[in-house]
Amino acid sequence: MKGNLVIGQSGGPTMVINQSLVGLVKEALKHEEFQGIYGAENGIVGILEERFIDLRQESDNTLEKVAFTPSSALGTCRHKPTEGDCKKVFEVFEKHSVKYFFYIGGNDSADTCHIVNEIAKKEGYELRIFHIPKTIDNDLPLNDFCPGYPSAAKYVAESFIGNDLDNRALPGVKIDVVMGRHAGWLTAAAALARQKEDDGPHLIYLPETPLSVTDFVRDIDNVYEQHGRCLVAVSEGITNANGKSIGEMLTSKKDSHGNVQLSGSGALGDMLVNYVEMHSKHKNMRVRTDTLGYAQRSFPGTQSEVDSKVAYMVGKEAILYALKGDIDGSIAISRLSKEGNDPVFETDLVELKEVAQKTRTVPKKFISESGNNVTWSFIEYARPLVGELPVKGYLEKTRVYR
Amino acid sequence: MKGNLVIGQSGGPTMVINQSLVGLVKEALKHEEFQGIYGAENGIVGILEERFIDLRQESDNTLEKVAFTPSSALGTCRHKPTEGDCKKVFEVFEKHSVKYFFYIGGNDSADTCHIVNEIAKKEGYELRIFHIPKTIDNDLPLNDFCPGYPSAAKYVAESFIGNDLDNRALPGVKIDVVMGRHAGWLTAAAALARQKEDDGPHLIYLPETPLSVTDFVRDIDNVYEQHGRCLVAVSEGITNANGKSIGEMLTSKKDSHGNVQLSGSGALGDMLVNYVEMHSKHKNMRVRTDTLGYAQRSFPGTQSEVDSKVAYMVGKEAILYALKGDIDGSIAISRLSKEGNDPVFETDLVELKEVAQKTRTVPKKFISESGNNVTWSFIEYARPLVGELPVKGYLEKTRVYR
Repeated sequence: MKGNLVIGQSGGPTMVINQSLVGLVKEALKHEEFQGIYGAENGIVGILEERFIDLRQESDNTLEKVAFTPSSALGTCRHKPTEGDCKKVFEVFEKHSVKYFFYIGGNDSADTCHIVNEIAKKEGYELRIFHIPKTIDNDLPLNDFCPGYPSAAKYVAESFIGNDLDNRALPGVKIDVVMGRHAGWLTAAAALARQKEDDGPHLIYLPETPLSVTDFVRDIDNVYEQHGRCLVAVSEGITNANGKSIGEMLTSKKDSHGNVQLSGSGALGDMLVNYVEMHSKHKNMRVRTDTLGYAQRSFPGTQSEVDSKVAYMVGKEAILYALKGDIDGSIAISRLSKEGNDPVFETDLVELKEVAQKTRTVPKKFISESGNNVTWSFIEYARPLVGELPVKGYLEKTRVYR
Repeated sequence: MKGNLVIGQSGGPTMVINQSLVGLVKEALKHEEFQGIYGAENGIVGILEERFIDLRQESDNTLEKVAFTPSSALGTCRHKPTEGDCKKVFEVFEKHSVKYFFYIGGNDSADTCHIVNEIAKKEGYELRIFHIPKTIDNDLPLNDFCPGYPSAAKYVAESFIGNDLDNRALPGVKIDVVMGRHAGWLTAAAALARQKEDDGPHLIYLPETPLSVTDFVRDIDNVYEQHGRCLVAVSEGITNANGKSIGEMLTSKKDSHGNVQLSGSGALGDMLVNYVEMHSKHKNMRVRTDTLGYAQRSFPGTQSEVDSKVAYMVGKEAILYALKGDIDGSIAISRLSKEGNDPVFETDLVELKEVAQKTRTVPKKFISESGNNVTWSFIEYARPLVGELPVKGYLEKTRVYR
């Protein structure tokens, strides 16, 4: 079926989201079914405003550079489309003879695809819609991992390598707040920083396990007594015993999805530091915090190789699925070889409604029974995704006789 | 003169401080004048407690790995020694037959060297004392740059590359807070992130220029009107019109030097966001902040090559100065070729008292007249230190006819 194609990027940027864009465009250029190859600026918002870019005009050299550039080259949006918006999308597509729509994003973007698809079906318009997975949160169901996660996890692990070395040199308690509102995948990745026995992070708190702040202080005191220092990884989405987000209780700011804004503020970390200082047994203990920030999704030059390759692959294969007939769906990633550090990945097409608005949290097998750490299974899962990390060198420290 | 040698690390860690340590140890191993080669744990604190490590026992392989590992391998301290402490240092040195003392650190460490040296002179004890420069703040006088600064500057520039791409994809105001209490060198380095005309940071505020918060909001509004977004670099040490630190007014916490604690908290950024939201002409503008955090001094794997080499060189050359006779001083770095991207550096020995407790702020020629930016001279100064940065790729964006 000949027609024009629209590709859009949605939600939070990642370090490899442009790999998917470029993988898709370069494959589409090979097939005469795709006439116009259009990029929508700022996702669904740009479609509603008819802001399209002619991606056929981009040179190969530009595309290559864009692929390795973090963040969304087409711009992105956090607009949650109404059903009315979705109808408008369909009208714009009709006007521009769009027969293929690809949307790179998380579970909200899958939902947008799903709704637009249902309307197109109802109206009898042949439109092939594909959701291409992307999210540093790693929380899409039916995927081994989500493109964007491994690179963000690598940045988090490298930050914790640095913070552990820093905390070792100038000992105290350090609490680092990591992104992830509903799922602790990215916070869990802090564990990859560990290279020897007493390396931090010594404690890891995910939103999947309700947190008692009393236990939190007790855990920190215990580690501090054992090592003379303590490095802590805390998810921005940690909840209290009643399942309420602790960060959300500290702020009333909302983002444009109506979600309380957790990132782009240091409030949660500062509150935890104050709480520890007030309630720890150890007075005069040095307590500091860092909130890792947007670098987690956009720091340049440290992308995971697996992430870059698979992100490119899902873009490319979305085109191949689109050529197979009147189908639509969400590209899902599975891992063929479960063992070893050089995993092989392949894709399937799953139904949009299976991915739309669903969240895959960190399963129990990846969380320690104590609730303040991850298991070895998690390390085995995550390490091959992230790839090699900088190796820490330590002095042996033979003591001089006094 | 034969005798034992003590080397210590002091103040905030850097990504290359261990290059200086290893450069010194490897050179010392070649000269029979140095008998024991001892590392003091946690700087002056470890000397007072006689916690010495026998660095002759470290393998070459370990030393190589340690050289490329960020943060202080011997541990560090923020202890400001009293004159009594300095006398105690001298006693410990006498007990352990220490004839050579090397201290890697900033201006406080130079001061420690200076005081110990004066006491040794008074007592007629032959002690050769050398201060080896290190600080991400880049604020030691008589140096072209301070080891540690180029790598921290590289991390800052890379963060701003990522944050600019992120802000471009999801437009709004982003305020990033950068380390540097009294000098704006590190904040100024954010400018290296710019690769094309409208790249951020669009505004840069250093502690050297008193800041009116009214002007701050007006500047941001102006940029926002021009670009539809605005990325801002703010030093943690910015001061108001009365010369008072704005960050210090927000917190009463002090570090062990008695300085108000600015790092390890997100308070300044959060306050600036609130202020902009309240006073901007543009309501509903998306305003976010990140406080870059300890990664600035300890992120692994992204060291500047020039920084690593020069940090190694100052350690090595400190040994060569120590062999020249009864001298002492601070190693100072000068740049031979002022032009081009491949500068050559050499060292001099300057008097300890010339460096002790002195701060070199960013000179006027590096700050724009408007006070909210850096000049091209600064870029020419800093770029060769930092070296190559990841290149951003942008789509050309040929528009599709509506």
